[in-house]
Amino acid sequence: MKRAVVLLSGGIDSTTCLAIAQDLEFECFALSINYEQRHSSELNFATRIGKEFAVIEHKIININMSEIGGSALTDMSIKVPEQQSSTIPVTYVPARNTIFLSLALGYAETITAQDIFIGVNAVDYSGYPDCRPKFIKSFETMANLATKQTITGDKIKINAPLLNLTKAQIITTGNKLGIDYSNTVSCYKAAANGAACGVCDSCRIRSRGFAVSGVVDPTIYRI
Amino acid sequence: MKRAVVLLSGGIDSTTCLAIAQDLEFECFALSINYEQRHSSELNFATRIGKEFAVIEHKIININMSEIGGSALTDMSIKVPEQQSSTIPVTYVPARNTIFLSLALGYAETITAQDIFIGVNAVDYSGYPDCRPKFIKSFETMANLATKQTITGDKIKINAPLLNLTKAQIITTGNKLGIDYSNTVSCYKAAANGAACGVCDSCRIRSRGFAVSGVVDPTIYRI
Repeated sequence: MKRAVVLLSGGIDSTTCLAIAQDLEFECFALSINYEQRHSSELNFATRIGKEFAVIEHKIININMSEIGGSALTDMSIKVPEQQSSTIPVTYVPARNTIFLSLALGYAETITAQDIFIGVNAVDYSGYPDCRPKFIKSFETMANLATKQTITGDKIKINAPLLNLTKAQIITTGNKLGIDYSNTVSCYKAAANGAACGVCDSCRIRSRGFAVSGVVDPTIYRI
Repeated sequence: MKRAVVLLSGGIDSTTCLAIAQDLEFECFALSINYEQRHSSELNFATRIGKEFAVIEHKIININMSEIGGSALTDMSIKVPEQQSSTIPVTYVPARNTIFLSLALGYAETITAQDIFIGVNAVDYSGYPDCRPKFIKSFETMANLATKQTITGDKIKINAPLLNLTKAQIITTGNKLGIDYSNTVSCYKAAANGAACGVCDSCRIRSRGFAVSGVVDPTIYRI
């Protein structure tokens, strides 16, 4: 079996990504990042999901990204918006996917995996520069010059199977693969037990995704 | 004045890089990474250098890269070699420059800097894949698709002014710019006060660099 590193945040997208990677018969090594994000309950959900999927290994990397700040998710003085933005929202975290993919690349090298899975999608989050297909492609090109294993001829592949799916299509895909989405959390301001606010961008996109897909929404709200 | 993020490890290369950036009249924002490296005394030296150069700001990011391991610098069970290797040495850290440059990219975005300086060089460390010119170029291409500021037309430049210099040439350059190299540390196994082992790869390259350059070697050795 081929090995893959799967970035796992505990949300709908990364969980679906993990299910897809397993369905493709990869041996999955999960990687979660504790970047001092506002919604740190997602790490508990990621741990639970990792166990449920029986991943080979689940690593959690800690980074004090609040030191850099620049986002409502890492700087507590910036308020999480409750209305949709027509520009890139303040929940965008500077260079987050570049940083996460770089850590996944380092992890992939130590376990000699050639595949990395990331649950980005360009449809619902079209405002995020690092969710665009051309960013993913360019990261892959760079990654193939970055590590020792690529010198010996191994090819690194960045897999983003959700890239062109809507949230509803992602949920439908995961539902067919047997995912229990009650184990996932999406809210930017989730309570410690995962209960969602219902009004942030992420909650609204999730809720609409379930509604459109026809899959029963298992989300627990605080109100 | 234009702003720059300078990756600062406390060694000869990054310190020279900082001096070059200041000489080019950049407002310098230093970034050091505490990645649980073996030679953590370098962070004390980086802090001292940051103060000496009166950088605008000096951020230190902590990452538990020992969780990933795969290198003699991050996995204490792997011994630091005392003889030169004909292949990529075990002190190579998987994806380190990719990870460091990604963090610098995030920092650059929050302070709206377009320039990042990194002290890699391809001559002495030709075995490291992420010290090659084509890696740096490819990272720059990717970076220009990765962040919000690049969407609004800003260009990110990865400056690697030491890329094609030998250690002796780097020391000569820094010496002309007035660097006091007694404030730097290179040893992979440096003591808390920076005293060097004298036998690791990094010590040998440093020592030879001073000898060839004719600049007095201020390094303090443990033995």
